[in-house]
Amino acid sequence: MVRGIVRITLASLALLSSAHAQTADPASFVNPFIGTGAVDTNSLSGSNFPGACTPFGFVQLSPDTRESPSDPASGYDYNDHSIFGFSHTHLSGTGVADLFDILCMPYTGEVVWEPGQYKSDFTHDAEKASPGYYSVLLKTWNTKVELTATTHVGLQRYTFPTGTRGHVIIDLDHSLDKKRFYWPCRIISAQVRVVNDHTIEGYRIITGWSRLRKVFFRAEFSQPFVSDALLEGGKVMEAGTVVNGTRVKAVLDFNASKDQPVLVKVGLSSVSREGAERNLETELPGWDFDATVADARAAWNKELSCISVDGTEEQKRIFYTGLYHAFTQPNNLADADGAYVGTDFTTRKAADGTHYSTFSLWDTYRAAHPLYTLVQPERDAAFINSMLRQYETYGYLPIWQLWGDETYCMIGNHAIPVIVDAYMKHLPGIDYAKAYAAIRASSVVEHPGAPFRLLDQYHFFPENKQSQSVSLTLEVAFDDWCVAQMANAMGKTEDYKYFMDRAGSYRNLYDADTRFFRGRNADGNWVSPFDPLTYGGNGGAPYTEGNAWQYCWYVPQDVPGLIRLLGGASSFTDKLDTFFTLQAKPADVNGNASGFIGQDAHGNEPSHHTPYLYDYAGQPWKTQLYTARIMQELYNDKSSGYAGNEDCGQMSSWYIFSAMGFYPVNPASSVYCFGSPQLRKAVIRLANGGRFTVLAPKAGGKNIYIQAVRLNGSPYHKTYITHKDILSGGTLEFDMGPAPNKKWGTAPEDAPAGSAY
Amino acid sequence: MVRGIVRITLASLALLSSAHAQTADPASFVNPFIGTGAVDTNSLSGSNFPGACTPFGFVQLSPDTRESPSDPASGYDYNDHSIFGFSHTHLSGTGVADLFDILCMPYTGEVVWEPGQYKSDFTHDAEKASPGYYSVLLKTWNTKVELTATTHVGLQRYTFPTGTRGHVIIDLDHSLDKKRFYWPCRIISAQVRVVNDHTIEGYRIITGWSRLRKVFFRAEFSQPFVSDALLEGGKVMEAGTVVNGTRVKAVLDFNASKDQPVLVKVGLSSVSREGAERNLETELPGWDFDATVADARAAWNKELSCISVDGTEEQKRIFYTGLYHAFTQPNNLADADGAYVGTDFTTRKAADGTHYSTFSLWDTYRAAHPLYTLVQPERDAAFINSMLRQYETYGYLPIWQLWGDETYCMIGNHAIPVIVDAYMKHLPGIDYAKAYAAIRASSVVEHPGAPFRLLDQYHFFPENKQSQSVSLTLEVAFDDWCVAQMANAMGKTEDYKYFMDRAGSYRNLYDADTRFFRGRNADGNWVSPFDPLTYGGNGGAPYTEGNAWQYCWYVPQDVPGLIRLLGGASSFTDKLDTFFTLQAKPADVNGNASGFIGQDAHGNEPSHHTPYLYDYAGQPWKTQLYTARIMQELYNDKSSGYAGNEDCGQMSSWYIFSAMGFYPVNPASSVYCFGSPQLRKAVIRLANGGRFTVLAPKAGGKNIYIQAVRLNGSPYHKTYITHKDILSGGTLEFDMGPAPNKKWGTAPEDAPAGSAY
Repeated sequence: MVRGIVRITLASLALLSSAHAQTADPASFVNPFIGTGAVDTNSLSGSNFPGACTPFGFVQLSPDTRESPSDPASGYDYNDHSIFGFSHTHLSGTGVADLFDILCMPYTGEVVWEPGQYKSDFTHDAEKASPGYYSVLLKTWNTKVELTATTHVGLQRYTFPTGTRGHVIIDLDHSLDKKRFYWPCRIISAQVRVVNDHTIEGYRIITGWSRLRKVFFRAEFSQPFVSDALLEGGKVMEAGTVVNGTRVKAVLDFNASKDQPVLVKVGLSSVSREGAERNLETELPGWDFDATVADARAAWNKELSCISVDGTEEQKRIFYTGLYHAFTQPNNLADADGAYVGTDFTTRKAADGTHYSTFSLWDTYRAAHPLYTLVQPERDAAFINSMLRQYETYGYLPIWQLWGDETYCMIGNHAIPVIVDAYMKHLPGIDYAKAYAAIRASSVVEHPGAPFRLLDQYHFFPENKQSQSVSLTLEVAFDDWCVAQMANAMGKTEDYKYFMDRAGSYRNLYDADTRFFRGRNADGNWVSPFDPLTYGGNGGAPYTEGNAWQYCWYVPQDVPGLIRLLGGASSFTDKLDTFFTLQAKPADVNGNASGFIGQDAHGNEPSHHTPYLYDYAGQPWKTQLYTARIMQELYNDKSSGYAGNEDCGQMSSWYIFSAMGFYPVNPASSVYCFGSPQLRKAVIRLANGGRFTVLAPKAGGKNIYIQAVRLNGSPYHKTYITHKDILSGGTLEFDMGPAPNKKWGTAPEDAPAGSAY
Repeated sequence: MVRGIVRITLASLALLSSAHAQTADPASFVNPFIGTGAVDTNSLSGSNFPGACTPFGFVQLSPDTRESPSDPASGYDYNDHSIFGFSHTHLSGTGVADLFDILCMPYTGEVVWEPGQYKSDFTHDAEKASPGYYSVLLKTWNTKVELTATTHVGLQRYTFPTGTRGHVIIDLDHSLDKKRFYWPCRIISAQVRVVNDHTIEGYRIITGWSRLRKVFFRAEFSQPFVSDALLEGGKVMEAGTVVNGTRVKAVLDFNASKDQPVLVKVGLSSVSREGAERNLETELPGWDFDATVADARAAWNKELSCISVDGTEEQKRIFYTGLYHAFTQPNNLADADGAYVGTDFTTRKAADGTHYSTFSLWDTYRAAHPLYTLVQPERDAAFINSMLRQYETYGYLPIWQLWGDETYCMIGNHAIPVIVDAYMKHLPGIDYAKAYAAIRASSVVEHPGAPFRLLDQYHFFPENKQSQSVSLTLEVAFDDWCVAQMANAMGKTEDYKYFMDRAGSYRNLYDADTRFFRGRNADGNWVSPFDPLTYGGNGGAPYTEGNAWQYCWYVPQDVPGLIRLLGGASSFTDKLDTFFTLQAKPADVNGNASGFIGQDAHGNEPSHHTPYLYDYAGQPWKTQLYTARIMQELYNDKSSGYAGNEDCGQMSSWYIFSAMGFYPVNPASSVYCFGSPQLRKAVIRLANGGRFTVLAPKAGGKNIYIQAVRLNGSPYHKTYITHKDILSGGTLEFDMGPAPNKKWGTAPEDAPAGSAY
């Protein structure tokens, strides 16, 4: 009977759950073409790909519209007219390209080997994409291609025209542009082996943006190939059943017919040949293409249903596609049995069975990881455990980790806020003693871009000794504040004092004359000449992919302190007003700065928190104004849906939070500042079984201003909510209207809590 | 009582054994400086190194006299005056350089980081080397360095002058010349980590001649370092306990004193950090430098005592140093627990606990591996099992395997004769079914340098489709004959016929007009113009590192057939006479061709068997003449002791066999042809417990001609002996004299048996 009761209760919960889920098939709102291409010269591609994958999956099987992809980094540009093939691994939204492993391409007619020969024209009217499914008609070959995937396996269905000889080329030489990168991409070793008349396997070992990657595959075909040929370095090895080299390809021939499509399933592993075979057998033993599509879609629906929303159709498409992009990575690199390759290129087993990588942390610590703490807490713990494995073998945490290896892309050590945020939010499943050791090591062990000795000596990074010094000083100050908070909570008083002291170093770069954070040299003198509009890139100037205007606002750990530096609330908001209205684009604007509203460049991450800063200075209606403008003007549901690189979920996560009405300005504070909710309703399904509901029934269009707020029915005046409030469940209600209510949320005590300073 | 009897018997055997062993300390005859440097412009370095190692050991710890070694490939030239440090891995006798891993260098004074700053002068009068031990006084730093080794561990003892600060730099950036190679040497990732005040560890992952190598190390010091500093890419990371990058170095400081030398033991692994630590703990837990030296020497004496010889002191030095060089590789790459990295860069465990590499097979199949079958049969089986692991992951057997990976250096597939020789000699411990599959795959699966389709189509390799075509056709014909013999013995009739047919393809390149093997194009026409003196190198011409004269003799599988082609015995020996007397050095002589007697270039392998061919044509005294001349003129016990690259034991093995009086012209036939014994006595200790004794009491000096031979007391007229004869034990006696006995061994039935043709 006890069991019976439990059963009934679970059934009731299931009913309750489906009652809460207002969107039964959220995948239907995902448009994988969002972010895949600019529509005019004023817009940008988000560098997303439209192909098939599962949530956080290793295999991301997608068409490549460039022979040697470089930009967009996803390999697909919506404006292109040719497809060179379908490769199994991609990056979503990054600024730098890599991966593109194990390209397959069907074609007909003569056997050809070169991309320029086997590529095909295509048009978007014969192309479809949805979560876990992609299809396209290759016009040149009159062949339909359909793609789906499991975590480690890509499944393709080729419908060749009847009566032709169908060919499938596996081109292991397809990679990012081998000529364009500072560390030239080069294939160190590759192999294709014919196992039997319907199976091939092989690998490539490649150095590129990721310094060293092993990619093993095993490909099984649904019907025997009638012949095969292997090629290395331009020489066909006809007599062979195996070919080794650096430019390795295979062509397999099939008796084609429209009625009997050729299916191929390709298992991948970053560890071993055996791993690829096991992954294939474990995840996709059969040949049911449609069931695999359904499974992939079900997997997406399971993850996407963590938040149910109501709003316009366009809003839902942007929202769920954003969630889809946020859940496209980090990717589980481990084999099905937990085996993975460490930063020291040694194979080990992950205790939790997963090893995630693709950590674009300079981007994702801001909102993507805070979002994961809410709706993917178990995975966020697994992400952190994966990062800790880098610490164990590498000595410090990831900065920008790709395929399990460090790339040192961008600045700061922003695994730190991710870990401290998880600690403060009590995410289970993490060894926090080790985690503290890791964030501490990342903050004291000198490494490229982190000469901490300079910080101890000068109390800022002098530009003549460490470039990008303003951005680095500011961002490291934030990381230091995070370390200090965890040290304090753990009773490590010495560390707390040391890191709180370093966290204040941002003040040493504040130039009271120009009222900007400004580079200084080791002699203490300001870097001159100075123009707050002048851009820096990724070295050679004090600012990273931005200018002094954009970096003026980066003190998320101590906004009250920043307000004081800038002369008090009124001066602060005046300067913010200028920031959001100053129309000036210098000739040297950095390529990553885009999506401008005044000097605010929402297309790049330094500006992401800035519109929320009015909340701290008594003018929350301006936060509401600018966040609404950004959502309404700089996001859409077309291929140009993002104002810049989507950046592995960060650009999407900004929207996901902001559309619900709040955003983590300080992503390690457990505090979310209110903006302008755009959705009429959002229900967050919490890991604790509860629900947090946000209602804004009048939201949308011109109703961008908060008139009043109620939390669980009671009037609420604060301009922020805490993580604890959300986890407690309940309902947050926004009354929205077309004009600001300058009385709401404007008292000093309504502003987000000050820092520990 | 039974036990007692056994004991007595064993004791008797031991006595017997020591009675037979005429050389109690053969290591005392080894001079590791032989082969380390030319003495004038007419001589060559053998490219050997003088440092410390154990037989077939992984660690070969030796001084590098070049900052970026390239030529000599061993990193050490006897003519140099500076030492840049002591690195742990080396190649012995090769033409191409690689390895030089984990360089350590002690120095005093200011902390410096660059090779040009820490290098030291040295002189040979303050330098010593013997098996397992090397020492030198670094004049610049007045510091004595002593080296010894176990299989996976290098142990160094630094005696700094008293009262100075002693430094030890670990320079992970030290490598082969990064600018000189077709596949530029590049460090992909490297790390040094300070574990505690007397331990550091780290690794480097490097691409060079070997396409990808991982080298992990763990270094423990006998006393704490008082400070340490880490450097990456020119930046000192003072605050760090770990440093990652590509140009990684560490400097450790010690309070030095003459009375308390600093010892450092460095464990290496090609697999993992854990492997390096385990190897260190397993093999060298303590700090007894002298005992480690004694152990290494004992290990060498154990191996070197497989043959006891009597002769002049110089002969013994050449002989035992040759045996030392023959036992310097192949090297056991596996960790102490049997873990190794396969050609697909996947870690696996070797069933027999060892994984050997450095297979310079184009050289060593000729005499080194036949020597191993006699005196290292268990290891030869382990070598073959290691080669079979390449077949399993790579699809075919090694051509030139370095650090477990294929380099495709040189031509042919000469793992085949090694395996077939072992099969014919019944070496235990090999899965011969798999071995046959492997040699067959290596003979049919097309791979670089092996376009077998051309052979099937044209019955020779056409030069306009595959360069080095004459050498390749001839050498593959020999490999094919080997495959056929094993196929025949296994009852594989089809294969036997196919490969015997291919083995005859050498005839298709014989040009009856010029009486040379000559290149042909696909249209059947001879490659013109033709001059038999014109050299080829490693591509672009029909001959490999030689000319038509040198390749005229390469039909070891069918010397009778070659004699017929050349017009019968008399024409054959006339042409051989011309070959050994023709003084003509064209301007294009290949750099590997050296050690000339006429056109015979003993400094390179194509000529190694040639002087023995007179045995087949009724003029064995000319074999005696020229082999004696080669031994007496082209080998010595100085740094220029070899007439060319020592080539991983092949040049030495030629001497070892020849000095005992016989040589395997066809290295897969179990037949050894008689030459001119130079040693007064040689006793081969056989794996079956028996002894085979060769006596030539009058040998040496002018007594180069065989007067008579007795086998086990009976007159013996054949000009060869079989492997079976040797394994049966017994005594072979040569009566030597200063003039030829043209009656001995000259009847047709005295010549080595004809082939199966």
